[in-house]
Amino acid sequence: MEILKKMMDLTKGLETPFILLDLEILKRNYKRLKDNLPFVDIFYAVKANSHHRIINTLKELGSSFDVASASEIEKLLKLGITPDRMSFGNTIKKESDIRFAYSVGIDYYAVDSEMELEKIACNAPGSKVYFRLMIDSSDSDWPLSKKFGTNSEHIKSLAIYAKTLGLVPFGISFHVGSQCNNKFKWREAMKEASKIFRELKLDYDIDLKMVNLGGGMPVVYDKPIPTVEEISEVIKDSIEKYFYFVKDLKIIIEPGRSLVGNIGVIVSSVILRSKKTDGEWVYLDVGIFHGLAEAMGGIKYQMIVEGKENSKLKTFKLAGPTCDSIDIMYEAVELPEDITLNDRVYILNAGAYTTEYATNFNGFYGPVVYFVEDLEFEKTRANSIEQKEES
Amino acid sequence: MEILKKMMDLTKGLETPFILLDLEILKRNYKRLKDNLPFVDIFYAVKANSHHRIINTLKELGSSFDVASASEIEKLLKLGITPDRMSFGNTIKKESDIRFAYSVGIDYYAVDSEMELEKIACNAPGSKVYFRLMIDSSDSDWPLSKKFGTNSEHIKSLAIYAKTLGLVPFGISFHVGSQCNNKFKWREAMKEASKIFRELKLDYDIDLKMVNLGGGMPVVYDKPIPTVEEISEVIKDSIEKYFYFVKDLKIIIEPGRSLVGNIGVIVSSVILRSKKTDGEWVYLDVGIFHGLAEAMGGIKYQMIVEGKENSKLKTFKLAGPTCDSIDIMYEAVELPEDITLNDRVYILNAGAYTTEYATNFNGFYGPVVYFVEDLEFEKTRANSIEQKEES
Repeated sequence: MEILKKMMDLTKGLETPFILLDLEILKRNYKRLKDNLPFVDIFYAVKANSHHRIINTLKELGSSFDVASASEIEKLLKLGITPDRMSFGNTIKKESDIRFAYSVGIDYYAVDSEMELEKIACNAPGSKVYFRLMIDSSDSDWPLSKKFGTNSEHIKSLAIYAKTLGLVPFGISFHVGSQCNNKFKWREAMKEASKIFRELKLDYDIDLKMVNLGGGMPVVYDKPIPTVEEISEVIKDSIEKYFYFVKDLKIIIEPGRSLVGNIGVIVSSVILRSKKTDGEWVYLDVGIFHGLAEAMGGIKYQMIVEGKENSKLKTFKLAGPTCDSIDIMYEAVELPEDITLNDRVYILNAGAYTTEYATNFNGFYGPVVYFVEDLEFEKTRANSIEQKEES
Repeated sequence: MEILKKMMDLTKGLETPFILLDLEILKRNYKRLKDNLPFVDIFYAVKANSHHRIINTLKELGSSFDVASASEIEKLLKLGITPDRMSFGNTIKKESDIRFAYSVGIDYYAVDSEMELEKIACNAPGSKVYFRLMIDSSDSDWPLSKKFGTNSEHIKSLAIYAKTLGLVPFGISFHVGSQCNNKFKWREAMKEASKIFRELKLDYDIDLKMVNLGGGMPVVYDKPIPTVEEISEVIKDSIEKYFYFVKDLKIIIEPGRSLVGNIGVIVSSVILRSKKTDGEWVYLDVGIFHGLAEAMGGIKYQMIVEGKENSKLKTFKLAGPTCDSIDIMYEAVELPEDITLNDRVYILNAGAYTTEYATNFNGFYGPVVYFVEDLEFEKTRANSIEQKEES
């Protein structure tokens, strides 16, 4: 709350909607993860928030990057990130993107099907491939569909096929599902992955070398979640227990939301409040099309209405500004009963999958991006000018 | 099919994904609607597709425009469209947008609540307001939620309130719901609207002058729909039957999808086909985030796979290229059983709410826009150069 007060002061007078990002929190998130899993290489999932200052901050901290397309790769190259710090984690790659990745020197490619192996063999010969294991993700807020990954049996046959295609079967990746609330899911997945390691070694003399723990570490939206420390303990135990037989095991993790989710606050304004036959509605200047798409998918953002933090709450419907009937964030959400026109609404933990999902639909633009460090710098400068003028 | 053949020839060699727009079809759509409803003013709903060449084509044909935001208004002004040809149809307007609209001379504003009236009275004093009637839209593919509009009783009190605020209560609008399959919905809505006209006149001496028929005329995706002619007949009958008592009635309509839906084809490529435990998957280089968001909402696009028009069909899951598990168009869709890597897939009737909804998520960009007339011009030029070289 103190931080929020500071944010309110810093952003006074700025026109909404905007998103305020705090790179200091990003640094803390990265260090916390690295401190807990010092032997794990962090590959930030660029898709969560690809702002170049986020990428740059992580680059300085020593992070590597999980990329999904040629233009993500191009962006990182422009920022001076070398290809050995990138992994092409999309299991559905365009052939032209594979060629591009190979031409710049990327060596790791995710795979879950025969055709993907063939595309890689053809466009990135000799590369290292890792296989995405599909695990039950019913403990996540957003269980992943079967769009990605495949089962253990299929992975073994893919590994053998990879070898015949001249590729290097290199490891197993998995994804416990976004916002995974059960820390033991990581243990389950690692146990299953280790079996594949063992069987490929014993039966086919294929030495896998890498475990990719994927993403899925949760961010607090509206309910208690396991901490990074708790999940890291489970991961460390599982490595000892299941992977003791693998020499020089390379372990990577692909956090997205857990690194950037809590570094951003979207600041919006109430543009209408109205009473309808089905209840009272509040409309914001930001909606589904301009940053809050995940509200549709079930993310329950915590919201603070400036100056009304202690008001009695009431149930409202909450919608965005466009002429589109799907632009509704919540059919029922608690807001201050005295919320009204031009109130500022702070939408917390909005750093991941917000600006990335934004469109310009209906002539409304997504939130402008501000950084805490810039606003603080400006404020310090303004203060020192004021002091000079006074003296 | 002949048109499709022509399109395939025209776009040979162009890299996917792209959308091909045909302005000749747009002209035909506009003329067909105008011929059927010559006494109705057409206000194109800019949100459906705001490409400047679409706007320009409609401007030349004499269309007016339904706008929702300051930046839509600015765009039209830049294209030389005068404010008397614009109606601010969003019932959730930002105050700064109202001020802007008023400053450039827009006179029509949609309203469904007290606060919206107060905002308009304050920022666009003396303007004409029309009230959005909420009607049951259960016959539409996408019934509109209660986000927009209100009931007859409320509209009467809003009209009275508008007058006390110095605004001009000017008319009633309604929207039968997008893709409305029951032509008699228009009659029902007009009957209800006419009652409000009558009661306001008799009881409060308020003379409404305008009926706004909204949008909702359907486009063929996968099932038969009422034609423009059929719906127009119902509209004409209803005007005679219910509005005979209104002198100088102004009637407007706000088509979006029905003008631009069938002018566009998205052309994409298969980038992967794979077998999973839950069936076979096909992945395209375009998905939910890059033009096909409406597939999620229930629009069933007709799709043609080039060269495989006569193949036996099979059920697939169809998904987009991103690392996001919601990027799935269809859990079950019929496609040629021999569909494979690099096949071109033509997604028909994709001119509305596609490019407008597109994001750059995951480093994949929305479809590039091409126009039939440009490609035809290029082809003619290439042919004539060839002929010259031969002679």
